[in-house]
Amino acid sequence: MPDTAAHSLTLAEIAAQLGGDLLGAGDIRIFRVATLATAGEGEIAFLANPKYRAQLRSCRATAVILGPDAAADFAGPRIVTGNPYAYYARVASLLNPLAAGFSGVHASAVVDSAVPASAAIGPLVSIGRGVTLGEDVVVHAGCVIGDGVSIGSGSVLYPNVTVYHGCQLGERVIIHSGTVIGADGFGFAPEGKRWIKIPQTGVVRIGNDVEIGANTTIDRGALDDTLIGDGCKIDNLVQIAHNCQIGDNSVLAGCVGIAGSTTLGEHCVVGGAGMISGHLELAAGTTVSAGTLVMKSIKEAGRYTGVFPLDSHDDWVRNAAHIRRLSKLAERVSELERLLKENNIKD
Amino acid sequence: MPDTAAHSLTLAEIAAQLGGDLLGAGDIRIFRVATLATAGEGEIAFLANPKYRAQLRSCRATAVILGPDAAADFAGPRIVTGNPYAYYARVASLLNPLAAGFSGVHASAVVDSAVPASAAIGPLVSIGRGVTLGEDVVVHAGCVIGDGVSIGSGSVLYPNVTVYHGCQLGERVIIHSGTVIGADGFGFAPEGKRWIKIPQTGVVRIGNDVEIGANTTIDRGALDDTLIGDGCKIDNLVQIAHNCQIGDNSVLAGCVGIAGSTTLGEHCVVGGAGMISGHLELAAGTTVSAGTLVMKSIKEAGRYTGVFPLDSHDDWVRNAAHIRRLSKLAERVSELERLLKENNIKD
Amino acid sequence: MPDTAAHSLTLAEIAAQLGGDLLGAGDIRIFRVATLATAGEGEIAFLANPKYRAQLRSCRATAVILGPDAAADFAGPRIVTGNPYAYYARVASLLNPLAAGFSGVHASAVVDSAVPASAAIGPLVSIGRGVTLGEDVVVHAGCVIGDGVSIGSGSVLYPNVTVYHGCQLGERVIIHSGTVIGADGFGFAPEGKRWIKIPQTGVVRIGNDVEIGANTTIDRGALDDTLIGDGCKIDNLVQIAHNCQIGDNSVLAGCVGIAGSTTLGEHCVVGGAGMISGHLELAAGTTVSAGTLVMKSIKEAGRYTGVFPLDSHDDWVRNAAHIRRLSKLAERVSELERLLKENNIKD
Repeated sequence: MPDTAAHSLTLAEIAAQLGGDLLGAGDIRIFRVATLATAGEGEIAFLANPKYRAQLRSCRATAVILGPDAAADFAGPRIVTGNPYAYYARVASLLNPLAAGFSGVHASAVVDSAVPASAAIGPLVSIGRGVTLGEDVVVHAGCVIGDGVSIGSGSVLYPNVTVYHGCQLGERVIIHSGTVIGADGFGFAPEGKRWIKIPQTGVVRIGNDVEIGANTTIDRGALDDTLIGDGCKIDNLVQIAHNCQIGDNSVLAGCVGIAGSTTLGEHCVVGGAGMISGHLELAAGTTVSAGTLVMKSIKEAGRYTGVFPLDSHDDWVRNAAHIRRLSKLAERVSELERLLKENNIKD
Repeated sequence: MPDTAAHSLTLAEIAAQLGGDLLGAGDIRIFRVATLATAGEGEIAFLANPKYRAQLRSCRATAVILGPDAAADFAGPRIVTGNPYAYYARVASLLNPLAAGFSGVHASAVVDSAVPASAAIGPLVSIGRGVTLGEDVVVHAGCVIGDGVSIGSGSVLYPNVTVYHGCQLGERVIIHSGTVIGADGFGFAPEGKRWIKIPQTGVVRIGNDVEIGANTTIDRGALDDTLIGDGCKIDNLVQIAHNCQIGDNSVLAGCVGIAGSTTLGEHCVVGGAGMISGHLELAAGTTVSAGTLVMKSIKEAGRYTGVFPLDSHDDWVRNAAHIRRLSKLAERVSELERLLKENNIKD
Repeated sequence: MPDTAAHSLTLAEIAAQLGGDLLGAGDIRIFRVATLATAGEGEIAFLANPKYRAQLRSCRATAVILGPDAAADFAGPRIVTGNPYAYYARVASLLNPLAAGFSGVHASAVVDSAVPASAAIGPLVSIGRGVTLGEDVVVHAGCVIGDGVSIGSGSVLYPNVTVYHGCQLGERVIIHSGTVIGADGFGFAPEGKRWIKIPQTGVVRIGNDVEIGANTTIDRGALDDTLIGDGCKIDNLVQIAHNCQIGDNSVLAGCVGIAGSTTLGEHCVVGGAGMISGHLELAAGTTVSAGTLVMKSIKEAGRYTGVFPLDSHDDWVRNAAHIRRLSKLAERVSELERLLKENNIKD
């Protein structure tokens, strides 16, 4: 299991690596990131959301990352940058480098392929035949990697991940525990009341810089492959069915489900528990709100929503009953309009 | 991990095994299945959906599976059958036989029961005491099989499946990675604000020819058992609570949830993310649309839906506000109707 | 894997341990719990729901647990108590004690920390460095426990659970198979169309007497920790995002999702597939109905619902179309009201 061993860096070292304008003493040492409200000695905070700007006055952080417009609001050492949130993310990564905590192949692992000396293979891992690992791949305890899988350089698989045979992972891919890549797609042909299994002969291909959360499932394709584009970020308990194509830099929040053969363009965002039906296309830049079911293709970028509004249970009971009579209600209104018109009742 | 080693068969061999009318040269060799649009040399395609019929004219497949009505539309070798889609599924299975890729008990497995010589037990598997395996059972790496479990002949458990003690799996059952069979049902008795655990003493019993996807959970019963009928097909990330009874040949798509003690008749279909409340009965042949919550029993077969229609976010905001005033709106319409009537305004 | 070995107890032994008024022979021996409808020789049933009271007359149980109001309705031995359901739960636990079925550290486990002699560590478990286990902790096969984790006395981890580094579990915590505690929260800073990972440096802290179902995910905090209060009961396939705080004795049913930084007060209940958006606060005692999405904070305890009512598919099609014109319909009604008023049409 990875420990994120804390390092420390001076402000000058940070600015040298990440850029930005350093105002104040460069030799001050930073140990941790923190929020404006909680940061203290040795910690660097950041201002990304203007609504927290007033906190700068009372902030006790050793240093702050902020944008040019707020640069004058903090008196201490600071780094001025156009995107303080992304800068903060990078500082946090410098201070908390991902370390496998182990190296080499653990004696208890069962490894049937040649792996680079730079690979770290944890305890009780199973790696099949014909597996190709790039440099510096980390495979944590309990993972099972099927025959013929390839995993690009710098990728990390957390404990108990399963990758089925033949699947391909890009570089710097992170997969969290319990996630299953490449299980059979859900394909059956009806024959009377029975269902005949259709072999799923495609694989899953995942691009570079993809992160996938815990207990997520991405099925292999039926004939063609399931594709996850570069830079996609996929949260926990997400289901991606066979033959989906997820465009680069798309974001799928927790509990999202995408049915088979659906294509998302680049940079789509699906909120938590959003569900997309099968065989659809979503235009690049589409945002689907949390809890929304998409049943038809979306041709134009934008935000789409379909959620029953929350209410007290009693009010819901009262209102929901009318949903089932809504068509009738609309007819009654049309009838009233007709009556007024026929009786010449107008302005 | 299973590899699906590609075989090849002549058309005559296929027809001999699967039936159908073979038109054209029987000695032509088939290596793969493919779609009408992509198939080429050595590949067999199929026409199941009439809307693709026009593709037959330009199809470059070596052979095609089709129904009697379209048999004249393809000039090359073809197999004519009443259900081309099921036929295709069976051809694909012949060409891609499921092979464990290993046999015997791996040295790293911890097996506390006697297993048949025909069983294939992968690396780092744990099998408890009193476990009964039928012939030709495959248990892939990292699976944990509890005490007293029974698994019927020809069943396959993919990596990292967990089966709790006492559960019973039928023959030819396929369970994909990460799935958990037989965890405790969610049963607690309230006592003030605290919850007292109710031991779950039933098990899960799964029929023959059931396939269960990845990271699905099926809980053991509280007193009686949880039952999954023959031929059921259950997708990824599905939750089946304690004491449910799922009728034969039912299909549950991804992300479906079924609360405790609910009974589904035979051949029910629940679309993705469909949710069924507890203690309900769904008639045989019920179809629940994707994203639909069922809160009462369904007595009559048919398709049922309850989904908020998708809209642009701005339009949704406008319309959703009125949902919470719908009861009031209906009253206003009734009042208008009354006024017109009282004032004798009519046709 | 645990077997729940059946014990037997006399009614007097039960009453001595759990209290209640024993009426009838105390030396009668009880082997199992059962329902009023099915109980027979050697079994004890219970009456918790008044609607089953009539079953007492024909009940063939050896003994019954019931409340004072129904005490006269059963002639045989009985235990009278204020909360028969909780009493039944406790009797069931006495009769079905949770037994690990093994003790000590299995030879195939990889354990890099000192563990108490009372711990039971199953086959193929991986335990990292600096792990602290209380007394009588049971870790079943295939679990992976990261560096620096602490687990309180009497806790049980079922097979294939993953706990990431640094997470803290209280006493008597039960975690079912496939669950992942402490994976990285879903935190990324946008930079153009790309997403920069924000290291997640908090942990997950879980109180005492918490039970967590199968394949659930609880993410570690970004800077602060994710907190699960004492006595919480969390079902299968639940997603709890980073920095959530779940109040004591809250209950989350299957397939629930809670987005980041949301706080639930004590004794909240979220029905199956209920979803709570991020950065919200739910008052103590809030109940969210199954299938409901909560998009704003709830200040007052009570039950809240937002579900599209189920209908036949054809009726749904008819009615749903009007949802998208609801704002317009309300305007039409307002216009009718205005016309009647202007034309002086009234009672």
